[in-house]
Amino acid sequence: MSSSKGPDYTSRLKRLRARFDDAGIDGLIVSSRENVRYLLGFAGSAGWVLITRNDCIFFTDSRYIGHARATIPVGRVYLASDGLVEAAAELSTKSSCAMCGFEGDNLTHSVAVRLRDKLDGMKSTCKLQSTERIVDRLRMTKDEDELRLIQKAATLADGALEHVRAVIRPGMTELQAAWEVEKWLRENGSGPIPFDIIAASGANSALPHSEAGPRELQVGDPIVFDLGARIGGYCSDLSRTLFLGEPDAQMRRVYDVVLKAQRTAMRDVGSGMSAAAADGLARTVITAEGYADYFGHGLGHGVGLAIHEYPAVSARSTDTLEDMMVFTVEPGIYVPGVGGVRIEDTVVLRDGSAWQLTRADKDDPVVPLRW
Amino acid sequence: MSSSKGPDYTSRLKRLRARFDDAGIDGLIVSSRENVRYLLGFAGSAGWVLITRNDCIFFTDSRYIGHARATIPVGRVYLASDGLVEAAAELSTKSSCAMCGFEGDNLTHSVAVRLRDKLDGMKSTCKLQSTERIVDRLRMTKDEDELRLIQKAATLADGALEHVRAVIRPGMTELQAAWEVEKWLRENGSGPIPFDIIAASGANSALPHSEAGPRELQVGDPIVFDLGARIGGYCSDLSRTLFLGEPDAQMRRVYDVVLKAQRTAMRDVGSGMSAAAADGLARTVITAEGYADYFGHGLGHGVGLAIHEYPAVSARSTDTLEDMMVFTVEPGIYVPGVGGVRIEDTVVLRDGSAWQLTRADKDDPVVPLRW
Repeated sequence: MSSSKGPDYTSRLKRLRARFDDAGIDGLIVSSRENVRYLLGFAGSAGWVLITRNDCIFFTDSRYIGHARATIPVGRVYLASDGLVEAAAELSTKSSCAMCGFEGDNLTHSVAVRLRDKLDGMKSTCKLQSTERIVDRLRMTKDEDELRLIQKAATLADGALEHVRAVIRPGMTELQAAWEVEKWLRENGSGPIPFDIIAASGANSALPHSEAGPRELQVGDPIVFDLGARIGGYCSDLSRTLFLGEPDAQMRRVYDVVLKAQRTAMRDVGSGMSAAAADGLARTVITAEGYADYFGHGLGHGVGLAIHEYPAVSARSTDTLEDMMVFTVEPGIYVPGVGGVRIEDTVVLRDGSAWQLTRADKDDPVVPLRW
Repeated sequence: MSSSKGPDYTSRLKRLRARFDDAGIDGLIVSSRENVRYLLGFAGSAGWVLITRNDCIFFTDSRYIGHARATIPVGRVYLASDGLVEAAAELSTKSSCAMCGFEGDNLTHSVAVRLRDKLDGMKSTCKLQSTERIVDRLRMTKDEDELRLIQKAATLADGALEHVRAVIRPGMTELQAAWEVEKWLRENGSGPIPFDIIAASGANSALPHSEAGPRELQVGDPIVFDLGARIGGYCSDLSRTLFLGEPDAQMRRVYDVVLKAQRTAMRDVGSGMSAAAADGLARTVITAEGYADYFGHGLGHGVGLAIHEYPAVSARSTDTLEDMMVFTVEPGIYVPGVGGVRIEDTVVLRDGSAWQLTRADKDDPVVPLRW
């Protein structure tokens, strides 16, 4: 276990460079905000990094240059006075790079074209190549420091769920309930939350990504809460479905099926398993109970500096699950026009098995009525 | 003035189609989240639209399909069961499009390549062309309904500034001050705020995009607050610099120069002026006072569904300012290691001149000390 001295950026750069040969590059322009933060700790909205075999140059505009000079822990800092694309072209040309990668899954088509044109215009000897997921793959497995932050964010999410469970009552709107969650998170240590909190009640709960709205909670409603906290940049993700008073028999059965599917998936998922097979663990249970058509999304997604990152945990994923990966397990059943249930935990694989990071109660979804 | 029946989506599509000839396209795949919202009102995170001369097809995945079917006001809704790229290729091939644009300034390089490959693989007769800013340009000039929402968001920002002015005191941290602003905004009607609130005190104020941090406010500090609200999707943007007790002579002078520059720009900016010339209005004042090197960013940016949109108001902008454009006027002077001042209002051009939408006080930046 590492002590908590903060991220080991030097080792991250080393792991990145070790991937250069396989990718057929000898330099990489990193533009994704989360990837820049992962490599150098810079959290601003505009700053790229050129990493070559021997150099690491962070470049940003005048708004951030002072902050960057004061905080970037490794390599050099360069003022991109004519823009990031111009600086990237200039710096990669000046470097000894023969084949420089860029993040094709992050740069827009227009920016990639401008970068290529710029290098052509300079008659640069540096060639450009689109790459995908090079840094993102490094980010899939977490170190102990990252895990500690995600665990803190997960525990905060649990606390917020407990809070909202204690305050919801008939007549409160979805928006008020969502704000109760957000305010609790922020006042108990969360940074800006990673996504708009979902509080989807009644028939709205059948829409997996319903925004919280003006609908008032009613007796018997299922209410899907989907929320996350952020600590030191790292996210957590938690969903629970509550019932405001006793649900009807149909929704109670749906709840029990989702819970069984979720527990089965968490019990059986393991390191070395394909993410596609993991998706099947919950889907098999839901299909056997006759709800196959009502579970239209994947089982989950990686969680870290981004709320949605690799591994993808879905039927189409090509990822393989490994120790120290953090991801969500979140099956759901959505009956159109009636209601839906989703139960989601953030988990980490350790010693081959899934360990829950979020631990909010799910045995008893019924919230007693109060006015 | 239109009555408030909500956005006229039919007219927006008509204005968009009127641009097709100039762009050399007979169809457009719109993927930018704000552009999709502008055209059809859909606010979810995954959904694209294909607009042809005679058709408008919104497509999304299973998470959003129920919501989309219930709410999309014009055209057709299609379930993209194999993904958005696959649906875009299929729908544009089935349409009568000969040359279909995509948003090159929004799609990533990788997605654009996949879309092209998909069409090639289908031996589609539809050709693809990268376009930029077609819908974004429509969004530059606002209608009365949009303006009403931005005005509401601006008034909320004013209220939050007044609130934080009343509660800051020595010893409060930047993070606490920023949270006071955010909580006030959310509890007084703002949706999720458009950007993390800046509360940059002391020497941090010299960093234009400093995040709020644990630093405690101190007597004599300049504190730059930069904040915005969101109403019905529309943003406002407001910066004020306050002093906690009397500032020293240097910072007082900096304040007066920035205020003079900001007032000059707001007085002299007008419809028909190039945005680059508008940038020069404040810069000339700041240069004449000897601070040219300390104003490293542009004068402002458009504000609407996005917090940063067109027109760009900077020395390099090629935009021309017109009536019903909404943008910020925000000169600043940042003295490294010492402190900075930024004063920003959101304005609209009407009848040729700028009208302030944000109106928080700036005559008296000194906040009396209290403990």
